Amino acid sequence: MIGKKSLTSTSWQKLGGYLRETQILGSIHSTLYWDQNTSMPSNGAAWRGEELSFLAKWLHARQSSTEFEDLIKEAREEIQIEALEADTDIKKKITNLDLLELELSRQKKLDAKLVVHLAKAQTEGYSLWKEAKENNDYKRFAPALKKLVHLRVEQANQLNESRSCWETLAQPFEPDLTIKRLNELFDPLRTRLPELIAKANEVSSKKLPKWDLDQKSQQKLCEILLNQWGRNQKITSLAKSPHPFSITLGPQDFRLTTRIVEGQPFSCFLATAHEWGHSLYEQGLPLENHQWFAWPLGQATSMGVHESQSLFWENRVARSKDFSERFWTYFANEGAPLKNSSDLWQAMNPLIPGLNRVEADELSYGLHILIRTDLEIALLQEGLDVWDLPREWNKRYKDLLGVSPKNDSEGCLQDVHWSEGSFGYFPSYLLGHLISAQLSEAMASSLTQKGFKGEDPIGECIKEGNEKELLKWLRNEVHHYGRQVNAEQLVKKVSGSDLSSIPFLNYLENKLKMLMTT
Amino acid sequence: MIGKKSLTSTSWQKLGGYLRETQILGSIHSTLYWDQNTSMPSNGAAWRGEELSFLAKWLHARQSSTEFEDLIKEAREEIQIEALEADTDIKKKITNLDLLELELSRQKKLDAKLVVHLAKAQTEGYSLWKEAKENNDYKRFAPALKKLVHLRVEQANQLNESRSCWETLAQPFEPDLTIKRLNELFDPLRTRLPELIAKANEVSSKKLPKWDLDQKSQQKLCEILLNQWGRNQKITSLAKSPHPFSITLGPQDFRLTTRIVEGQPFSCFLATAHEWGHSLYEQGLPLENHQWFAWPLGQATSMGVHESQSLFWENRVARSKDFSERFWTYFANEGAPLKNSSDLWQAMNPLIPGLNRVEADELSYGLHILIRTDLEIALLQEGLDVWDLPREWNKRYKDLLGVSPKNDSEGCLQDVHWSEGSFGYFPSYLLGHLISAQLSEAMASSLTQKGFKGEDPIGECIKEGNEKELLKWLRNEVHHYGRQVNAEQLVKKVSGSDLSSIPFLNYLENKLKMLMTT
Repeated sequence: MIGKKSLTSTSWQKLGGYLRETQILGSIHSTLYWDQNTSMPSNGAAWRGEELSFLAKWLHARQSSTEFEDLIKEAREEIQIEALEADTDIKKKITNLDLLELELSRQKKLDAKLVVHLAKAQTEGYSLWKEAKENNDYKRFAPALKKLVHLRVEQANQLNESRSCWETLAQPFEPDLTIKRLNELFDPLRTRLPELIAKANEVSSKKLPKWDLDQKSQQKLCEILLNQWGRNQKITSLAKSPHPFSITLGPQDFRLTTRIVEGQPFSCFLATAHEWGHSLYEQGLPLENHQWFAWPLGQATSMGVHESQSLFWENRVARSKDFSERFWTYFANEGAPLKNSSDLWQAMNPLIPGLNRVEADELSYGLHILIRTDLEIALLQEGLDVWDLPREWNKRYKDLLGVSPKNDSEGCLQDVHWSEGSFGYFPSYLLGHLISAQLSEAMASSLTQKGFKGEDPIGECIKEGNEKELLKWLRNEVHHYGRQVNAEQLVKKVSGSDLSSIPFLNYLENKLKMLMTT
Repeated sequence: MIGKKSLTSTSWQKLGGYLRETQILGSIHSTLYWDQNTSMPSNGAAWRGEELSFLAKWLHARQSSTEFEDLIKEAREEIQIEALEADTDIKKKITNLDLLELELSRQKKLDAKLVVHLAKAQTEGYSLWKEAKENNDYKRFAPALKKLVHLRVEQANQLNESRSCWETLAQPFEPDLTIKRLNELFDPLRTRLPELIAKANEVSSKKLPKWDLDQKSQQKLCEILLNQWGRNQKITSLAKSPHPFSITLGPQDFRLTTRIVEGQPFSCFLATAHEWGHSLYEQGLPLENHQWFAWPLGQATSMGVHESQSLFWENRVARSKDFSERFWTYFANEGAPLKNSSDLWQAMNPLIPGLNRVEADELSYGLHILIRTDLEIALLQEGLDVWDLPREWNKRYKDLLGVSPKNDSEGCLQDVHWSEGSFGYFPSYLLGHLISAQLSEAMASSLTQKGFKGEDPIGECIKEGNEKELLKWLRNEVHHYGRQVNAEQLVKKVSGSDLSSIPFLNYLENKLKMLMTT
């Protein structure tokens, strides 16, 4: 076997070596991004922009080179010979090559100049967005956004796929997604979510008391959480940033950030749970060796699946009744005014529509996404002008959630995504809710079959602090696929059914019922 | 004039563009280093090593390429034509080219493989040193150190200069330094410092009370210090690392780290003062435009001069009697058991020889350096075996300082430098003391001439919180030269005399007298 490998794997290994260098560059790029968001002084932005666009240019050159093309071709020829010997790894290898070729064909279509312009516009956009948000001054950001929209439309034109502009840009986040399919999945939510919100408002008229926790207490609770959830300090580190995120900087280097928001005692805690869920997915991806890290199959399959993992830990676990039963004393010990677990549970699930997506409850969250998705499609392919964005934003919030931002900072400037030129990302958040709910149903059946008792075996595990059982299931059933299957294929494989909004709506209705009878 | 520039500056600009890209790469390398020391989880080390050696390889290729060589050659030809027109910038331009050629000729002599091996050995060495220090286990680090010594000797061989091995490796830190000159400068200290220490011990038999400050208080005091010393938050950021350092990551991006040491209430404060001094020098280097950042003349002239700047702010300012008068109430407000300024001043100047270089007082500091300098010369060119290092270290500490480390962690493992393969750096610390003392004398004369009153005009400025006057002098007399002059030339230019150990010894004797009569 060893003899055979060393005989037949030369081209494969050469391709692996090439990918590995690309991955080194990519992870350097990510490290600069991490630093930009956690440590860099504001005036460092211009030079950082130079660095990032320098790397982006080079990455693009590597990802679209004829050398790369030849390496893929040679590896494919080699595989065809191997295929005759019926190697079990062949299917995976072919999928790897298919995905590499798809990416190569995309990169080749892009003009190097556009790549550099985009990288610069992204750094500039981020920096101006931060200023604009701090000073509630949309007009400072608008020209940068206009430029980003323009460059991204140009990018879609260059890619020239048989998809609409927005769909083309959404592909890297959600492979094979169409606007048609998105509407099928989201339309039931457009009508049902406002009904559920109305129901929640109607009954729960009681006002929850306002309280807060100091920074140190919030950090301590996050530490307790991550320690109980099995964090390995040798491979993870934490920091603070204006917008929480999770990022992988190496095969053994997983970072997450959180933030403290005054007056929101759960913001830091739930962001930590959320980002940790992302990180667990990355940690569970197939990492057979250093090289694997650079192969497509070792990567996350879609941002929707990524979100499903963060939302599982944030909502299905940390916001559950059972979690509150176990955790309320920790909060009380830090000075939270709680008399029992129910106080914590209700405080973590206020079900009151607000202006902020990240702090939104599970009922209204979806509406935040619908608004953003509609608006970015409008910006990219329906002629919405950047200068009209604040007005459109505010109108839709009034219509759909019944709330109006006081200013653009809590309105259309609240999220970082567009400032970095990320269009097509937002729907992944809501797809994540759908996927998480459907996977949770499958997980519950599995646990019942394995002999876990009760109507809600997931809840039982949470109550007992046995979250490692849930993680084990995710590792075995979800994480290890990498990009072998896309998001919808994964859901079908694991749950036996096509992705739909029904499990999510069922979950919400059930939670609402429980909250209304507490 | 514009017409002339655009006509004649083509080759010069091309060279500038090339240097700028090299600088981008170099600053990316520095950012990874910063992250490694402030954020990276320990298991991230292996991948980080891959990234750093990838960049090192590439940097070396750029710094030794024929393209680079040709650009320098063309720029020089262009300059010769300009020289006829007697441009005032010509001299600077020629110095820039001379320094670039010197560096190029060094880089060209190095084998690319060695560069990669060294980069890997440095990352490995750092990682193993950290483990060895934490676990007090020198044997875990020794093989890595042996490898580093071997590779650095090999590097000196490849460079093949008409200097000894150690001298060759010291050049990047201290251009033109020889062991002979070093002995001339250091020999008076070898005899005089132990005499001064004995005198200090003889008289000051009183034991200082032990106390500490909590982390928050220490951080607050550092914030007050930096704010009073004119820190601009937009261009600086702070973090913690095991070994404090200062690093420049871009033309407007200056970082410093500090650390909290239990039982050492001034450790964090003085490290901040020290690193801020380094940063002020970097901030004061000639930065006419982005490109300038990459030209040799825009860089620090030597590590000794760099140290003189950090030591000036740490010792001449923060450890002075006048500073204590101004600052003791801030310390008292944070809970330090001080009755008056004199209590603070004495606590900051204990004059008791200890084991730790970084925490050492000004009297014994030099002896720490003499030991390290002797040992690294012995390791590199006198056949000292790496396995004998701990014994030799302990013996010299006993002989020279009269103290013995309990273990290697507080002995030969205490400093990071050798773990990163930095040999030839240590003397710069002591040269820094000498330079700082000599520059301070020149500064005092200048201030007196400008009408500042008193025997000690520097002290007067400190007492009044007028440190900006001191910084102004440093900016005008020291910082702006960059690499136009080397360390000794700079000292002569500013003070009118050759560098010597006399001003430093005078300063120490004076301080000792003051402390003994307090």
